[in-house]
Amino acid sequence: MNRVYNFSAGPSMLPLEVLKKAQEELLCYGGSGMSVMEMSHRSSDFEAILHSAEASLRELMKIPDNYKVLFLQGGASTQFAAVPLNLLSEHKCADYIISGQFSKKAFTEAKKYGDVAVAASSAGASPTFSTVPETTRADFRPDADYVHICFNNTIYGTKFHYIPDTGNIPLVADMSSCILSEPVDVSRFGLIYAGAQKNVAPAGLTIVIVREDLIGKAMSETPAMLDYKLMADNDSMYNTPPCFCIYMAKLVFDWLLSIGGLEEMKRRNEKKASLLYDYLDSQKFYTATVDRKCRSMMNVVFTTASDELDKKFCAEAAAAGLKNLKGHRSVGGMRASIYNAMPYEGVVALVDFMKKFEMENPRLD
Amino acid sequence: MNRVYNFSAGPSMLPLEVLKKAQEELLCYGGSGMSVMEMSHRSSDFEAILHSAEASLRELMKIPDNYKVLFLQGGASTQFAAVPLNLLSEHKCADYIISGQFSKKAFTEAKKYGDVAVAASSAGASPTFSTVPETTRADFRPDADYVHICFNNTIYGTKFHYIPDTGNIPLVADMSSCILSEPVDVSRFGLIYAGAQKNVAPAGLTIVIVREDLIGKAMSETPAMLDYKLMADNDSMYNTPPCFCIYMAKLVFDWLLSIGGLEEMKRRNEKKASLLYDYLDSQKFYTATVDRKCRSMMNVVFTTASDELDKKFCAEAAAAGLKNLKGHRSVGGMRASIYNAMPYEGVVALVDFMKKFEMENPRLD
Repeated sequence: MNRVYNFSAGPSMLPLEVLKKAQEELLCYGGSGMSVMEMSHRSSDFEAILHSAEASLRELMKIPDNYKVLFLQGGASTQFAAVPLNLLSEHKCADYIISGQFSKKAFTEAKKYGDVAVAASSAGASPTFSTVPETTRADFRPDADYVHICFNNTIYGTKFHYIPDTGNIPLVADMSSCILSEPVDVSRFGLIYAGAQKNVAPAGLTIVIVREDLIGKAMSETPAMLDYKLMADNDSMYNTPPCFCIYMAKLVFDWLLSIGGLEEMKRRNEKKASLLYDYLDSQKFYTATVDRKCRSMMNVVFTTASDELDKKFCAEAAAAGLKNLKGHRSVGGMRASIYNAMPYEGVVALVDFMKKFEMENPRLD
Repeated sequence: MNRVYNFSAGPSMLPLEVLKKAQEELLCYGGSGMSVMEMSHRSSDFEAILHSAEASLRELMKIPDNYKVLFLQGGASTQFAAVPLNLLSEHKCADYIISGQFSKKAFTEAKKYGDVAVAASSAGASPTFSTVPETTRADFRPDADYVHICFNNTIYGTKFHYIPDTGNIPLVADMSSCILSEPVDVSRFGLIYAGAQKNVAPAGLTIVIVREDLIGKAMSETPAMLDYKLMADNDSMYNTPPCFCIYMAKLVFDWLLSIGGLEEMKRRNEKKASLLYDYLDSQKFYTATVDRKCRSMMNVVFTTASDELDKKFCAEAAAAGLKNLKGHRSVGGMRASIYNAMPYEGVVALVDFMKKFEMENPRLD
């Protein structure tokens, strides 16, 4: 077995300890005589896994008691519909901050269900979406049922460097690519959702953290499986949940607690991101195109002087065991996704490779 | 490791060979240097897994070329909404055959979206749902956009012993608890859907097989993730699919092909079910309550003379390594779910235990 450093934007690396534990238990979990994959979701063994996962997530994120934690399916893309279907409850209007492709998708989906407007956008930034919009309370309609943001923009390598002040309007955040990367004040949000496949578990699990007063007002045409109240009332077990993904999430939560929680995770993530950004800022062969104040700690976007050189970089990096560094097709260049499970040594190896590549490919200008 | 015989109704047993293969590859798939759980869904390795899974499923079920195969999330319960949202396209009316709790749930959900009626029901059978309704073409409204059935009723241990004749009206079948248990003529159905957690893969994957002419007419308020056209146009990769479940499904499909496909699977399932039903029919200590002509090959429901004895049976069976034999709370008694992955030896062990239990607990009458 020869493991690589996998810089994929998602699905992405899982902690090696977690994978080893899952491997060890794959044919027989504890004294159950069966794999977690074979377990009835109504069994006491699985219920213990589910409750432990929720308890650990609450501890890690210091989730207040008046928030429900839901373990769902369908990814963030399903939440793009579930959020308006559940939350467009009073004035049937909501405001969206556009900071990239996923917030645009969320906005387009929400338009099916009510009066949905763009409150601010960084689409016009040069290069496109290289920053996030600055907003003040005045940017939002006072009767908006909620304001929506995408907190970390995987494709563009940006992150909100501030939490928008929306006054009494609930703030809804897609945190798919930054959840659990650092502490966050959950009480500043009405609802947080995240696909699991970057920092939590294998693809197929979606986490929703929602303030209780926002539950129970879904539109009548809401599919049962998208109704937060039904999911909350049934402890995420209205139907069979994605049991194995929830088990993997539990192992990841336990790993995070074992290393010291989100403060320690933030310290490690800052150390990894600083190593890479400091190097990028110290030379001229590579360019980090993102507005400095909103650089993502998870997704680091950079380019060389030409598309051909970018291509050569990705191919040679892959051959050296540094995989999936190609930038998103809409942006080009390179993207190093350095989520929680990427070890510091992986970023060291990347920076070493970048230095070597520069030496071997001197600029002609 | 001491594996048990797990008679759970779902999630349920997976073939031991499949689990062992998954365990072996869990830290490193082929030469990729990573787990399938960590793989970008856009990588060539994962795309090969997805395409292989679809090709094997098409081969196993002999799926005609004019049907799309979709690998989705959300379980059958999500399809309860997706089916009417996509298929109530012309007359906005559909007919449901009620044969148990899941068909009732599907019916209730569909009522949100159109003129949905009960064409036939076995709710009144004694005991409840111990049979499936007989229907003729005259039972269905000529302008129905589709007719819906639940082909195997997990809770009650019944199965449709015939395919309803709906004329030109597309027949939609929930096959969650019988898919791949025997050959089925796909061309008789407009749409087949199934949660994976019984005969296919761990919970978190839903398979939809849909005739192409039924796609592309979804209602405007359909969430993107429930729109068959969007899913088909994007090869089930509109967003990140449940990659690991798809990989497990591929391993299960390959296992089915390796043993000889669905004809051989049917032979094995008949042998298992006959052993159990023949024993039940040969004695008087246990009662098989289901109408003989529609006995399920997957879920075998039986009782002793009293609730206390049922309880004792389940407890002692569990202690003997025969797990999860308790019947559904709405039915009581016992239920032995003997899906594809349950070996013949498991049913032999169950029948041996049943004989021993009868000897130890003689009837007093």
